[in-house]
Amino acid sequence: MPRPVITLTTDFGTDSSYVAQMKGVILSINREIEIVDITHQVPPQDVRHAALVLAEVAPRFPRGTLHICVVDPGVGTEREIVFVQIGTQFFIAPDNGVLSRLLRRALPRHAVKLRNQTIWLHPVSDTFHGRDIMAPVAACFVSGAHPELFGPPIERLQTLDWPEPRMEGRQICGCVLYVDSFGNLITNIDQQQIEQVSGTKELSVSCAGRTVRGIVRAYGHADAGSLVALIGSNGLLEIAVVQGSAARQLGVEAGQEVVLTG
Amino acid sequence: MPRPVITLTTDFGTDSSYVAQMKGVILSINREIEIVDITHQVPPQDVRHAALVLAEVAPRFPRGTLHICVVDPGVGTEREIVFVQIGTQFFIAPDNGVLSRLLRRALPRHAVKLRNQTIWLHPVSDTFHGRDIMAPVAACFVSGAHPELFGPPIERLQTLDWPEPRMEGRQICGCVLYVDSFGNLITNIDQQQIEQVSGTKELSVSCAGRTVRGIVRAYGHADAGSLVALIGSNGLLEIAVVQGSAARQLGVEAGQEVVLTG
Amino acid sequence: MPRPVITLTTDFGTDSSYVAQMKGVILSINREIEIVDITHQVPPQDVRHAALVLAEVAPRFPRGTLHICVVDPGVGTEREIVFVQIGTQFFIAPDNGVLSRLLRRALPRHAVKLRNQTIWLHPVSDTFHGRDIMAPVAACFVSGAHPELFGPPIERLQTLDWPEPRMEGRQICGCVLYVDSFGNLITNIDQQQIEQVSGTKELSVSCAGRTVRGIVRAYGHADAGSLVALIGSNGLLEIAVVQGSAARQLGVEAGQEVVLTG
Repeated sequence: MPRPVITLTTDFGTDSSYVAQMKGVILSINREIEIVDITHQVPPQDVRHAALVLAEVAPRFPRGTLHICVVDPGVGTEREIVFVQIGTQFFIAPDNGVLSRLLRRALPRHAVKLRNQTIWLHPVSDTFHGRDIMAPVAACFVSGAHPELFGPPIERLQTLDWPEPRMEGRQICGCVLYVDSFGNLITNIDQQQIEQVSGTKELSVSCAGRTVRGIVRAYGHADAGSLVALIGSNGLLEIAVVQGSAARQLGVEAGQEVVLTG
Repeated sequence: MPRPVITLTTDFGTDSSYVAQMKGVILSINREIEIVDITHQVPPQDVRHAALVLAEVAPRFPRGTLHICVVDPGVGTEREIVFVQIGTQFFIAPDNGVLSRLLRRALPRHAVKLRNQTIWLHPVSDTFHGRDIMAPVAACFVSGAHPELFGPPIERLQTLDWPEPRMEGRQICGCVLYVDSFGNLITNIDQQQIEQVSGTKELSVSCAGRTVRGIVRAYGHADAGSLVALIGSNGLLEIAVVQGSAARQLGVEAGQEVVLTG
Repeated sequence: MPRPVITLTTDFGTDSSYVAQMKGVILSINREIEIVDITHQVPPQDVRHAALVLAEVAPRFPRGTLHICVVDPGVGTEREIVFVQIGTQFFIAPDNGVLSRLLRRALPRHAVKLRNQTIWLHPVSDTFHGRDIMAPVAACFVSGAHPELFGPPIERLQTLDWPEPRMEGRQICGCVLYVDSFGNLITNIDQQQIEQVSGTKELSVSCAGRTVRGIVRAYGHADAGSLVALIGSNGLLEIAVVQGSAARQLGVEAGQEVVLTG
């Protein structure tokens, strides 16, 4: 049997023992499990950010991977924790919309609420369901337990909306979805949308009062320090400063308007 | 045979190669070992902080786990490095008190000084015993070596004291043990002590001139921005700002007095 | 067969999903591979820094380890990506000099350009060759593929030069190579060079207008707060403040001159 894989996405940071406590629980159930950190630096309680990260990274993992996401401002309240199959992978997360970006691509299957307390870790802390509920259920699942065991079906999962780019003639009005660790501005405008407005003229991209002409293929195709637009590794339009930070240079955060003109 | 597990707790940070050098040494001896990072962001040379982290996280790991802790201001001096069994787990650390919080729960067994240089990595650096002494001894142990091989018994381990909360009538005077990555203030007052002063009146918790009434079950049971007291995931009283940082809002660090009134 | 080991050294940081995307690709090809993070906090696009990290850490890993390094300011341009054997280990990196510090110790063998697109991940992003080219080739190699499959031989690898210390009578004029996470100043002067100028007098080390007399064996041999010189764990002369930061106290960065007098 191939090694089971569990990934972890949290807002715990890496200076506490919270992440390691979850790993200890998982390995105590089955120490053959391979645990992979996605990131633990989701901005605290930022469910939208976590949803984007999960949607970006999950498709890169093997079929059968179980992804745990603990970005959970409602921990200890009435919100459910859910187990869901999406495509060929599995997810355990609070039902707070963190899976909704993934659910734009595929319908959920086998969605259940985690309710069967016999497979939880007791006493269950009211502030750390990641450790006491999600970790043991995840370890049991990848070790062979059937989701029906975890709890009753859930009818409808919470969803969050993202601003969609608007097409207006030869213009696309979008926005910055998030800023990556290099300070690149990742927008919500994708390659297919850009192709629809592309004509004979050079494209231009405007953001925060600055306009960039043309789309480069890669950072290295422009001089250090220059502001460029390009298609990032996730297929989305990106504004970057070569060997610098576009976020800092433009003073821009997630949500900022971006206009592409064909 | 189940996979051996070694954990690492250090103050090395994650921007150097020091942690990876230790992993390389371990895997060079036995590449079936599963290595888990606890944290590498213990504040530099802060033995007390490392002691709290170890005591919090170790019980979550499988029996037989070997925990290495390299927070070692005395590296290269006469201080000993020790191998100790505590409960069903094993520890390798400098004998500087970093294990003393764990030793409040169980007596040490098979405690030896690491002295047998034949299983060390040579030349032994005077500044990196984590790599040259602790890592190879740990890898040999989880691969089957007997602790008697490592060196002679040590009679008495160094211990550190922690301030204990004082009970005065219906009051408990404690303090902040440490601040977690969310800015929550983790105190030294535990749930059992609180139950002793609980009466018919609502509890109140005072810290840095602010008083909180009542103990909430979880962060989500109060509004964003409000100051709350609750029992954290380690069973200790905690002061938090919902979706914010109590440390920043109260301007509080480890050591600050906290008074609970029943 | 022992578990294959792949290490990752990047400038991606740990707050994005970039590193995890590479891990997902590797595990999708062979989930028995053990993936070890060296560091993801190489300063952005700092090829020289990455070269030093790789040379320091690689020798600690088992024979047969494959090290991937993605510090790649030229991603998407004409620079090649190479596969190289150095000693008993293997490397996949952009051909930008990042391997040149390792190549001071051993000649490259089986050096090829990655050109065989059939083992890449498609569509290949112009900005993330780490994920789409290096990760799949690395996973195929440690799973048994022959390097001839990856592309044609490369005649000559790019190299970078490092300032070498100058010996002048009983003096060595060197410089700070880099600053580690404790703020210690790691110089380019090694133990053998120091032995050549050592005489009957005490050595002294000067940097940024401060002079330290003598070389201590370890941090713990001097009082907290004192400025000391010592031989670090990599065999290089190091200037440190005991339980403090020499970089901060002296206001020094990589490149600063250091003079040792025998």
